[in-house]
Amino acid sequence: MSRLTLRVISVSSCLLFFLLTTVALAATDPLASWNDGASKNSITAFVKAVTDKSSPDYVQPSERIAVFDNDGTLWSEQPAYFQAFFVFDRIREMAQNHPEWKTQQPYQAVLEGDMKELAASGEKGLVELVMTTHAGMTTDEFSGIVKKWIQTAQHPTLKKPYTQLVFKPMLELLDYLRANDFKTFIVSGGGIEFMRPWVEGVYGIPPEQVVGSSIVSKFEMRDGKPVLIREAKVNFIDDKEGKPVGINQHIGHRPIFAFGNSDGDLQMLQWTTLAGEGKRFAGIVHHTDGDREFAYDRDSHMGRLDKALIEAKTNDWTVVDMKKEWKVIYP
Amino acid sequence: MSRLTLRVISVSSCLLFFLLTTVALAATDPLASWNDGASKNSITAFVKAVTDKSSPDYVQPSERIAVFDNDGTLWSEQPAYFQAFFVFDRIREMAQNHPEWKTQQPYQAVLEGDMKELAASGEKGLVELVMTTHAGMTTDEFSGIVKKWIQTAQHPTLKKPYTQLVFKPMLELLDYLRANDFKTFIVSGGGIEFMRPWVEGVYGIPPEQVVGSSIVSKFEMRDGKPVLIREAKVNFIDDKEGKPVGINQHIGHRPIFAFGNSDGDLQMLQWTTLAGEGKRFAGIVHHTDGDREFAYDRDSHMGRLDKALIEAKTNDWTVVDMKKEWKVIYP
Repeated sequence: MSRLTLRVISVSSCLLFFLLTTVALAATDPLASWNDGASKNSITAFVKAVTDKSSPDYVQPSERIAVFDNDGTLWSEQPAYFQAFFVFDRIREMAQNHPEWKTQQPYQAVLEGDMKELAASGEKGLVELVMTTHAGMTTDEFSGIVKKWIQTAQHPTLKKPYTQLVFKPMLELLDYLRANDFKTFIVSGGGIEFMRPWVEGVYGIPPEQVVGSSIVSKFEMRDGKPVLIREAKVNFIDDKEGKPVGINQHIGHRPIFAFGNSDGDLQMLQWTTLAGEGKRFAGIVHHTDGDREFAYDRDSHMGRLDKALIEAKTNDWTVVDMKKEWKVIYP
Repeated sequence: MSRLTLRVISVSSCLLFFLLTTVALAATDPLASWNDGASKNSITAFVKAVTDKSSPDYVQPSERIAVFDNDGTLWSEQPAYFQAFFVFDRIREMAQNHPEWKTQQPYQAVLEGDMKELAASGEKGLVELVMTTHAGMTTDEFSGIVKKWIQTAQHPTLKKPYTQLVFKPMLELLDYLRANDFKTFIVSGGGIEFMRPWVEGVYGIPPEQVVGSSIVSKFEMRDGKPVLIREAKVNFIDDKEGKPVGINQHIGHRPIFAFGNSDGDLQMLQWTTLAGEGKRFAGIVHHTDGDREFAYDRDSHMGRLDKALIEAKTNDWTVVDMKKEWKVIYP
């Protein structure tokens, strides 16, 4: 081999090495769907501070607890919570065995898609619909119903499976935190048993790291087999003041990282950041993108964001402007 | 170096290697405190079956959920549950600020060590003592009280710190399961917040893997700081039929491995083994050793073991004879 050949090989190798490194670096931006900016910076700065052993803010892995609201934080929540669409879909399916529902409220309203009449049935009507669709079966049966629904159902206006209406930047954030030895939990006002059958596949969060609202369940032996029967009685509402209670009950230590999007998350963000020792992070997804998703805050019935937005300023919480800061919304 | 020298070195090396290997093998029996026998065999056979990828009984790591009762299963529970001694110790300490307790039942009975009078106060009296010592403070304050107590308190008859009254063979079992990618949980009738401050240090079980009984807690802002106040109201009793409910609420999948010691664990053992697919393990610690620990089963008020012992035979559950099968009891 001539000197020249060697030199060419050597230069080519350098170039190749440079190219590969560049590609590798680009490919390994763990928050690739986030534009460089205030939110991405505050997230990465926090994670670096608590994972760097030489940092005064270092936190040992066992205390790296991160909590996420679900509706409006990890997936969309408009024009209604997706669990409400589950209720309506179930009522339509169950109606086959309930001919009397054709003339019986609040069922008639659901079957006829009469939202005005449904609203008129008030909280009492909604609770009845929830209990009709969520209670009266075993936990295994309910889990099977949810699994089948999530695999087949479509969002009424966006015409997509619900599992495709999750936020890609937040999926990256979950992965990024876990890669840094955080334990990620969902803390949602939604039903704990409504989330568990699918959140592991979609968010990588196992059943034991899901905190949510629940109805009472009761142990019974049926034909020599133990079952848990779901009863039409509220057990726990994991919303607002309930979120710190649910966090304490299920997790037992205080999170150091929390993300929400509405006033229902305010107390969770307070509980995470305003007490205890050490560095903390609180983030709020602000729905500012009416083109790619939905734009709403103070005046929305679903996911109202008002008080928490005010407190975000006082407490230096990170407010994510979806429109400006997210390159893409859905995967 | 002569040939002879070389040979001597070579033989010595072999010997050294042999010795080191033998020592290493002995040191790595993960269940060294268990005598070879039925229980040890059934445990190791189960773990091998569910962790061997070529086995028809293979279980993926995310489903390797193991649940343990605490009182009588991981530590002793005689002559009374250790949490009862915590209550008595607290009443004696709090009495300094409650001179009226000297003549007020059930407090007087505790202060005078009058167990007959205490028993006469019935369940109502006991609940009052529990609430007096467990409610009316923040979760952080209660955690601090428990931490201080567990570090300083002594068992009234055995005269040892309670953390030394844990069962060494069970500590080994917890480690062995975790080394085989099991996630280990406590599922106890004891107070969830009474266990969390110390079980991570003693059993290697983090707060989020503790399921127990609880009182209601309530979120409040106090001087701009969020706190959870413990209220004198029962939230959940994690015993008997409550154990499968607590398991479902906190863990969300069915365990494949469960260990208990009393009829309070019967439903947990049923829930683990009698439903669902695949290989399961249920174990019962049978307190047969009146010399080294305590001997009791059917006729004991504390940790009565009767129905579960009968069902163990029918269902092929593993019953551990402490006296015969454990080389040592305490660490």
